[in-house]
Amino acid sequence: MKKKFGHRSCSVARSLDILSDRWIFLILREAFFKVRHYDHFQANLGIATNILSNRLKILVKNGIMKRENDLEDGRRIKYRLTEKGLDLYPIILAFMKWGDRWLSDEDVPPLILYHKACRHSLTPVMCCEHCGEPVNARDVMFEDIPGTPCSEFRGHHT
Amino acid sequence: MKKKFGHRSCSVARSLDILSDRWIFLILREAFFKVRHYDHFQANLGIATNILSNRLKILVKNGIMKRENDLEDGRRIKYRLTEKGLDLYPIILAFMKWGDRWLSDEDVPPLILYHKACRHSLTPVMCCEHCGEPVNARDVMFEDIPGTPCSEFRGHHT
Repeated sequence: MKKKFGHRSCSVARSLDILSDRWIFLILREAFFKVRHYDHFQANLGIATNILSNRLKILVKNGIMKRENDLEDGRRIKYRLTEKGLDLYPIILAFMKWGDRWLSDEDVPPLILYHKACRHSLTPVMCCEHCGEPVNARDVMFEDIPGTPCSEFRGHHT
Repeated sequence: MKKKFGHRSCSVARSLDILSDRWIFLILREAFFKVRHYDHFQANLGIATNILSNRLKILVKNGIMKRENDLEDGRRIKYRLTEKGLDLYPIILAFMKWGDRWLSDEDVPPLILYHKACRHSLTPVMCCEHCGEPVNARDVMFEDIPGTPCSEFRGHHT
């Protein structure tokens, strides 16, 4: 039953339960840019404090960020990405690449990242771990059982 | 000014303006599994028709999906991914991989995809286009101007 239609993408649905929120992603992006303190998240995003507190709580509760005492200032708390949080980086890169290609604003040049290992500017590409070749939608096969509804995806999220 | 802090991730923010919605992603995922008709999206997702209609309209308006007459049944409309939509596939793969790793449900084995070119099961990996090596958050450098707020990200989306 490994390829049953109704099971095919529960990982996507489960990921979306946590991640399908604009503020969650913008907080994560700040965290990848080494923002650590509540007031810096707040200033960089212009986010209301009740929303910021709520989203940080969700991220901590889901093990994506962790709270730490700031050793340089005992009164302050730092929010850091956990391994589970750092592992979201490919999703951020994928969003960035798609946005650069399809939603570009000529007045705002894209952010340039550098790959430390090869010292080249980074163009991220989704590849097949086995053969190393780039993968796009037309390169992938799947099996399904047409017509089987995926009851797990039913709900009222809007 | 290419690497100005305030510009660093506007592509991410712009992408999120369209994509930070659970239903949008679940519709896209269905579309990648070759679902084409309104009633099939509705049945597979258990989504309310007003929400489905709204999200399809957003996807068409943003050039991610297109409406086509169904040549096999003139009364029906097909919704298909455009090139811009197909190019979202790495984001779906990145969500799936993260969910498989961090949110796995032992009762539900992960969906297995196959890479047509090498005929191997597909483990997607984000790589550097230049050197071909896998890229994670610790492998990437960026430049910023600390303390510059990114006013473009301010708003009220919740």
